[in-house]
Amino acid sequence: MAVTRVWAPFARTVMMIVGGKHYPMSDEGLGWWILDSPQAGHGVDYAFVLDGSEPLPDPRSPWQPYGVHGFSRMLDHSLFAWTDARWQPPPLSSAVIYELHTGTFSPSGTFLGVAEKLDYLVDLGITHIELMPVNSFPGRRGWGYDGVDINAPHEPYGGPVQLKRLVDACHEKGLAVILDVVYNHLGPEGNYLGRFGPYFTDRYSSAWGSAVNFDGPGSDEVRRFFIDNAIMWMRDYHVDALRLDAVQGIIDTSAVHFLEQLSGEVGKLRAQLGRNLSLIAESNLNDPRIIEPCEAGGYGMDAQWSDDLHHALHTVLTGESNGYYEDFGTLSDLAQALQEIFVYNGRYSAFRGRRHGRPVRNVSGHKFLAYLQNHDQIGNRALGERASHLMNASRVMIGSALVFTSVCIPLIFQGEEWGASSPFQYFTDHQDQELARAVAAGRKNEFAAFGWAPQDIPDPQDAATFERSRLDWSEVGNHPHASIHAWYKSLIRLRRELPELKDGDPGKVLISHNDEEQWMVVSRGSVMVACNFSHQEREIGLYEGRRREVLLASHSGVAHRDGSLVMPAESVAVLFLHRG
Amino acid sequence: MAVTRVWAPFARTVMMIVGGKHYPMSDEGLGWWILDSPQAGHGVDYAFVLDGSEPLPDPRSPWQPYGVHGFSRMLDHSLFAWTDARWQPPPLSSAVIYELHTGTFSPSGTFLGVAEKLDYLVDLGITHIELMPVNSFPGRRGWGYDGVDINAPHEPYGGPVQLKRLVDACHEKGLAVILDVVYNHLGPEGNYLGRFGPYFTDRYSSAWGSAVNFDGPGSDEVRRFFIDNAIMWMRDYHVDALRLDAVQGIIDTSAVHFLEQLSGEVGKLRAQLGRNLSLIAESNLNDPRIIEPCEAGGYGMDAQWSDDLHHALHTVLTGESNGYYEDFGTLSDLAQALQEIFVYNGRYSAFRGRRHGRPVRNVSGHKFLAYLQNHDQIGNRALGERASHLMNASRVMIGSALVFTSVCIPLIFQGEEWGASSPFQYFTDHQDQELARAVAAGRKNEFAAFGWAPQDIPDPQDAATFERSRLDWSEVGNHPHASIHAWYKSLIRLRRELPELKDGDPGKVLISHNDEEQWMVVSRGSVMVACNFSHQEREIGLYEGRRREVLLASHSGVAHRDGSLVMPAESVAVLFLHRG
Repeated sequence: MAVTRVWAPFARTVMMIVGGKHYPMSDEGLGWWILDSPQAGHGVDYAFVLDGSEPLPDPRSPWQPYGVHGFSRMLDHSLFAWTDARWQPPPLSSAVIYELHTGTFSPSGTFLGVAEKLDYLVDLGITHIELMPVNSFPGRRGWGYDGVDINAPHEPYGGPVQLKRLVDACHEKGLAVILDVVYNHLGPEGNYLGRFGPYFTDRYSSAWGSAVNFDGPGSDEVRRFFIDNAIMWMRDYHVDALRLDAVQGIIDTSAVHFLEQLSGEVGKLRAQLGRNLSLIAESNLNDPRIIEPCEAGGYGMDAQWSDDLHHALHTVLTGESNGYYEDFGTLSDLAQALQEIFVYNGRYSAFRGRRHGRPVRNVSGHKFLAYLQNHDQIGNRALGERASHLMNASRVMIGSALVFTSVCIPLIFQGEEWGASSPFQYFTDHQDQELARAVAAGRKNEFAAFGWAPQDIPDPQDAATFERSRLDWSEVGNHPHASIHAWYKSLIRLRRELPELKDGDPGKVLISHNDEEQWMVVSRGSVMVACNFSHQEREIGLYEGRRREVLLASHSGVAHRDGSLVMPAESVAVLFLHRG
Repeated sequence: MAVTRVWAPFARTVMMIVGGKHYPMSDEGLGWWILDSPQAGHGVDYAFVLDGSEPLPDPRSPWQPYGVHGFSRMLDHSLFAWTDARWQPPPLSSAVIYELHTGTFSPSGTFLGVAEKLDYLVDLGITHIELMPVNSFPGRRGWGYDGVDINAPHEPYGGPVQLKRLVDACHEKGLAVILDVVYNHLGPEGNYLGRFGPYFTDRYSSAWGSAVNFDGPGSDEVRRFFIDNAIMWMRDYHVDALRLDAVQGIIDTSAVHFLEQLSGEVGKLRAQLGRNLSLIAESNLNDPRIIEPCEAGGYGMDAQWSDDLHHALHTVLTGESNGYYEDFGTLSDLAQALQEIFVYNGRYSAFRGRRHGRPVRNVSGHKFLAYLQNHDQIGNRALGERASHLMNASRVMIGSALVFTSVCIPLIFQGEEWGASSPFQYFTDHQDQELARAVAAGRKNEFAAFGWAPQDIPDPQDAATFERSRLDWSEVGNHPHASIHAWYKSLIRLRRELPELKDGDPGKVLISHNDEEQWMVVSRGSVMVACNFSHQEREIGLYEGRRREVLLASHSGVAHRDGSLVMPAESVAVLFLHRG
């Protein structure tokens, strides 16, 4: 005997199909329907029939073994034998995050495939893995941002049990798990939510389809739907942190913003579980309110992604200037990102056609994630090229050194640490053929604006596009990948060992740069990071006579000469200033 | 010689018609066009031609002598001889506000007509008059919320010069002026703004047509358009405060909310002019952020309207329960509004179908306006009935006593103080006949939902609807109006004279009430307000033996009996507790 509930305020009758039979559900009030059924129990398939409709999956389905269009399956979380009772994740402030896509990270493309690489990640110095969305999405292949059954781990990845095994294994190895969740929209295919209740609104428009109803009639339950999802991952899957996709797409003008409510609820869960739980927002708003504490009028996120640093770094390294890169490109912008986090802190943005952002004040850099690249900046390119495909190894070394010596929390995208040859392209596996054609056409149109010929854009629906994006692990130990790998490992070690690099105060970061000569020196206490972006050797005057030890250099030609530092073309070095 | 500028980023060519001739304007960059013309000067008519269009009025027109579709006229603000050089408005905390509609307040329906009544308002005890919107709107008759030329005082009211004379006269009499401005939308007729630039967006929908573009491309200039309007009223028309219409319609997800930017700019102007300027928001968000200081993450408004108190009071007095009144109706709600301002502070609202609001904490009641009625609650009724048309004089006396003895700033709507017989109906004078028909039909449909027959709804376009809404000043000194007038005057005097009533701290308000017997006692220090809402005499037990003096009573039967207070049916009394 078990009780099943579903929120279907639009329905006049709701039937539940369980054990192959139809049962009428009872109206419990407030739009909730209930059935106490002897057939219900772990592993049993079920579906709902609204006003005589075809069988529909449960919006809160915990398991979708037949995909997004199929029956849901009941799941008893208490059956899993966790071995991480004493687990406590390392604090975000000391994190080194590894973002990965389950489908392309390993040869098998499953949670088990990820689990097999944990020793490798520990050896690299990683503290947190971040899984791109694992919610059920249409077909087998996809980035996961078109998820619909947000509580059901994608079956082709291994489903609920394998995800739990992965998290448990991570904790055993000392690795924390961050999960990417999408609350700003739901995917277009397999999205039956609008039939159940007012999950969507047309008062706001979204870049990705219908906007979610966070503040209209019925929104209490819609907010609850997402908050219960967050709690479920943390409580039932032992996930340590959530990465909230594109929170600018969460339009909520009510007095308590959804993110504030979420951070309050996660705070309660943190106290209840006695485990350190975190929320990390992806935000393009450049609004410190996201990470300010609720008591100070903020939304209480523990951290947010810092795209300004990425864009400033990427443009200086590549010279690219299209799309959102038009707003960046100077060493001054890069210096500002390293010292003040937001480059756009009220400045006019040509890309946005308006002033953008506001300054971050008195906030630790540990509230921001830094990266040379993440899945978006790679995958949103026409061909999905990584940084290492766009620049030589020397420039990758400069860029990664600046990320790992920054005040922000560093994040690596899978394979970045060895300059993987595989791209990360945009791939889908829509079962709805009309939608599939629209997605492929949309992709071609989008890049036509940048001068691309349609035939040069990989077809997202083609399985080859997905396969092309899979990591080739045979590269890791081989030239030229091995030296990049060693470089990343050294950077992570430096960051862990040098107290100066653990300090999150951006106000203590001192920077000199010369735009004409294209060099930059970042000082963090006794640690100095010298970069020469130019194609010529540069001599950088040092104003103190004290001895500097080269801790790490991308080039053997880095040297001292007459009180100056000689930096070969396209080089970076981390130096240590000995006192006295 | 004078320079004229216009922002028209969509145009490829802009011509200016001035002195009857066409001149090409020069592209100044950033979408601005400029013309230095010998014909330009005070009183000269002009218009713009965009890419060969018909002549269009200036979006920033200071003067529209021919209505919203006609040519604009230049205005030199320096020509007016102000006499209020040493003027300083009384603080909002001691304000008694009188809201009026220029077109129906006086026989002439002009600014001059308002000026002729200032002695009357001073005698009543008013400190601030609040003018419903005076911006140019279509036709002659209207509430003003469909304004389009937001910088041009409505010509049928007397235009720019008469408005300045009114403000100057107010200041001479010691009255401050609050002006109602509409930044959440613009009217549908005569709205040429979208032809000039990206003033509107389809990313959000508005209850009143296109949403204003506060955060998309080009929004810097759109925000500037409204902020410059606010500054103009305060600087060039010496207006003391602005009432911002329905700020919930200002959808802005950028890092600096429009209201925060506005309060910052008005703060600068305040310092520059050395005059106390205020911003008062109408907001239905029940969000304390609106009135919290910017330093604390708020938007820095000086005050906001408090609809919860109105609704709580209105439902208790009338027993009405349709529309938004369904959320109110108990003495507990009324007590909460008097003690905590927001009744909906996170509670579930049946009307909104979701939880609504958040608590106000540590904020003075002087940040909120209280009223027994304002133009909206009267005019949005099918027949525009005032409180005094819906309840007997005794209940009006109870309601007004609670407003004037509350911690909030009291506001009266024109004629309320004598229980005027004229309704305040919804009237328009659209010149666009299709729109006129749509407005009238919309009004009939809206009320059909509440069971009204179409023929019973006054036609907004009918001049008789407007005339019916005009105050009849002959009523003031006559029965039964004279006694209501005397009551209001006494309440205002009490509020001014009793220090207890000047205290804005809602935390000090003590309330006892009995829902079954329908009485309530509000204590504010030594002042006690006893109300009997029921149709029977009530005896209210007083727990102290000290002597209470009746300062004001709606009924001669209010008396002490054996340590209790005897309150006749439907009565109110203000009492003073003498110490020792």
